[in-house]
Amino acid sequence: MKAEIIAVGTELLLGQIVNTNAQYLSQELASLGIDVYFQTVVGDNTSRLKQAIQLGTERADLLLFTGGLGPTQDDLTKDVVAEILGRSLHIDRMAMDNIERFFKDRKVPMTENNRRQALSIDGATPLSNETGLAVGNAFAEGGKFYILLPGPPNEMKPMFEQQAKPWIMQHVLTHEFPIYSRMLKFAGIGESALETKLLDLIEKQTDPTIAPYAKESEVTIRISTKAESESAAMGKLDVLELQIAARLPEHFYANEDVPIEKTIIDIMTERSLTLSCAESCTGGMLMQTLTTIPGSAAVFLGGIVCYSNEMKEKLLNVPHELLEGENAPGAVSAETAKVLAEQVRMIVDTDFGLAVTGVAGPAYSEGKPVGLVYIAISRRHGETKVYELHLKGNRSTIRLRSTKTVLYQLWKQLKLNETRTDK
Amino acid sequence: MKAEIIAVGTELLLGQIVNTNAQYLSQELASLGIDVYFQTVVGDNTSRLKQAIQLGTERADLLLFTGGLGPTQDDLTKDVVAEILGRSLHIDRMAMDNIERFFKDRKVPMTENNRRQALSIDGATPLSNETGLAVGNAFAEGGKFYILLPGPPNEMKPMFEQQAKPWIMQHVLTHEFPIYSRMLKFAGIGESALETKLLDLIEKQTDPTIAPYAKESEVTIRISTKAESESAAMGKLDVLELQIAARLPEHFYANEDVPIEKTIIDIMTERSLTLSCAESCTGGMLMQTLTTIPGSAAVFLGGIVCYSNEMKEKLLNVPHELLEGENAPGAVSAETAKVLAEQVRMIVDTDFGLAVTGVAGPAYSEGKPVGLVYIAISRRHGETKVYELHLKGNRSTIRLRSTKTVLYQLWKQLKLNETRTDK
Repeated sequence: MKAEIIAVGTELLLGQIVNTNAQYLSQELASLGIDVYFQTVVGDNTSRLKQAIQLGTERADLLLFTGGLGPTQDDLTKDVVAEILGRSLHIDRMAMDNIERFFKDRKVPMTENNRRQALSIDGATPLSNETGLAVGNAFAEGGKFYILLPGPPNEMKPMFEQQAKPWIMQHVLTHEFPIYSRMLKFAGIGESALETKLLDLIEKQTDPTIAPYAKESEVTIRISTKAESESAAMGKLDVLELQIAARLPEHFYANEDVPIEKTIIDIMTERSLTLSCAESCTGGMLMQTLTTIPGSAAVFLGGIVCYSNEMKEKLLNVPHELLEGENAPGAVSAETAKVLAEQVRMIVDTDFGLAVTGVAGPAYSEGKPVGLVYIAISRRHGETKVYELHLKGNRSTIRLRSTKTVLYQLWKQLKLNETRTDK
Repeated sequence: MKAEIIAVGTELLLGQIVNTNAQYLSQELASLGIDVYFQTVVGDNTSRLKQAIQLGTERADLLLFTGGLGPTQDDLTKDVVAEILGRSLHIDRMAMDNIERFFKDRKVPMTENNRRQALSIDGATPLSNETGLAVGNAFAEGGKFYILLPGPPNEMKPMFEQQAKPWIMQHVLTHEFPIYSRMLKFAGIGESALETKLLDLIEKQTDPTIAPYAKESEVTIRISTKAESESAAMGKLDVLELQIAARLPEHFYANEDVPIEKTIIDIMTERSLTLSCAESCTGGMLMQTLTTIPGSAAVFLGGIVCYSNEMKEKLLNVPHELLEGENAPGAVSAETAKVLAEQVRMIVDTDFGLAVTGVAGPAYSEGKPVGLVYIAISRRHGETKVYELHLKGNRSTIRLRSTKTVLYQLWKQLKLNETRTDK
């Protein structure tokens, strides 16, 4: 089964937006075991769109279109696909009702061109749009499969997930068992090191399959299997997950697609543990990251960004002798990181206190090199752990890696503690 | 002049990475006045790559390739392009020296396959790689132009900017004047409202041209002109910039591609003004954003994330009566925002104090709706301004918009102050 993704829109050819739809659909098709041979981007132009459709029909079995379903005269996808395949268009009643309701609810008059968004190709399955107005289409013709999806990712993704994907499983992959997948998430390890640890499993993979999955600054693998029932699939995935987990006990933090801060907030909520932070070089990034998680307020109570030395002294009681003077360790030091973590924990009165202080660059600080960062984790009735990091990259990378490293070390402490009996 | 961008790499077809190269090159080509008619993505496969090259040669005048210049057997671009056009490959001496130096410096033995990265198509101009090892190529053949660039964006962008772009201006756009562009940046206004304000200018644009430019959560337009000299171009751009600026004095913050926090840090550094923040619902995002800017330490001294009510009382002296009780305004209120901004300004001892408190969701808080946010700006010897926002979107959008709004209002105060005489 060969697929081609055709994104339609002049805004893509002008570089006004990046084609994230192609990435999303490629990942989804890969997870269904369908090979994508080409991704094409074409503008809002009838003759070039025709060219792309004809070419796609020659070289692929399944064509997925995104974009060009909107209300304006520039939105051509349905018209051109219908014309090439000799089909007509009609107004889909449910889609039209949805559009009329939308304008009525907003008390805005509906302009006539919005009717175009309810157009459906004769004989196609309409794919309803839960988050927008333009209806999608799916149909087979001459042994080829055509799926038309809207361009905005917030409309395209739910339509694919809830409607196009089941349609593909039912009509395209008819003779195959459905695919079941699971995401395994890792922290504190790079992609190549992870692959090395799993090399023999990856090389001999047949069923379930193992695939790396791109996620910004996280290492993720997806394990997938075809099976006749969900329980049969889960059994196979469980076995492989246990095998992988056993090899990477210090890195494997979740078997679903969540960031490590979510796992941390969940563990700490369950154990009724609280957290505070003192940040210097990360300037708030650590707290910002933790508070992206809904419900983080139960765990994270507050913290201090002490960007200047005065603030480290005034708000976090770092002794002046530690920060300044000929033989002082300075703001970027293990000693200061330790005091920051312990003080913020005591001031905010939490079970854990985290601290980050370092040189994010671009300039040296205190004669210390860019990338030197100290992080500390203080805990009530426990010893404060301090870690010295030597990070590579520019200012934003160093800040991000510092944040990720604190989170990783905190997760590791929480996990270690779970397997001991002292809690 | 019609161009096609061909990205080569199976990792793109698997969705492991997103094709940001196509966006970058499309923007760059648009700024040179070159139309991109197709973007194509093809895998590391000889026969399909051949297909893509032949098709591109038929339908475009200028073909830009990214990817497939690396050391492995999967990296096919140069081999296949050379084969199709009947040219041979040779080792480029300078590129080879660069590769040998790289391995010598790192005291790592060079594997033989790295020689492939020095391959150059006979008769092509080698494009040296300042940030990597694979050499690029540019040449003309049969009235068509071919440019081969590496895949990693951190290698591709500098090679395009410093070498491919001048090559295009010299060899492809021979009979045309070079293009000069300027980015104009706006805050506190949406893209469609901006376009409405400039509609007549956009509609009658000929020279300079006006184009919206996609940037995450910012509104940017690029004005461009062709001219025989830089000074002639600058004159024309200055006139249009003044016209646009006059229409949007409360929104136009920079005539270069910088975020508003950069402009704020610059203005405050110049005026020796300092800043502190108290954040509730944004959880550190405001401070994190300010400290992305190198040199922000001169302006931003520190701040407090007061996520819990206890912390608002303890660290920022918000009166208990304000936060709790039957008729208390609560944590999400104009009164609390005002106290937070004033207190953080006094505690950290800065010229300005910023505060954000609101309901980011997903759940209601204090019986107040998701999206209700109060921001406050306190200044030394000045009145505290409080703004009530009703924001739409999910948790992360609400946090982002709150942050952007505080920054915008701060910039507006700083700008207003500049035109008055009280400073």
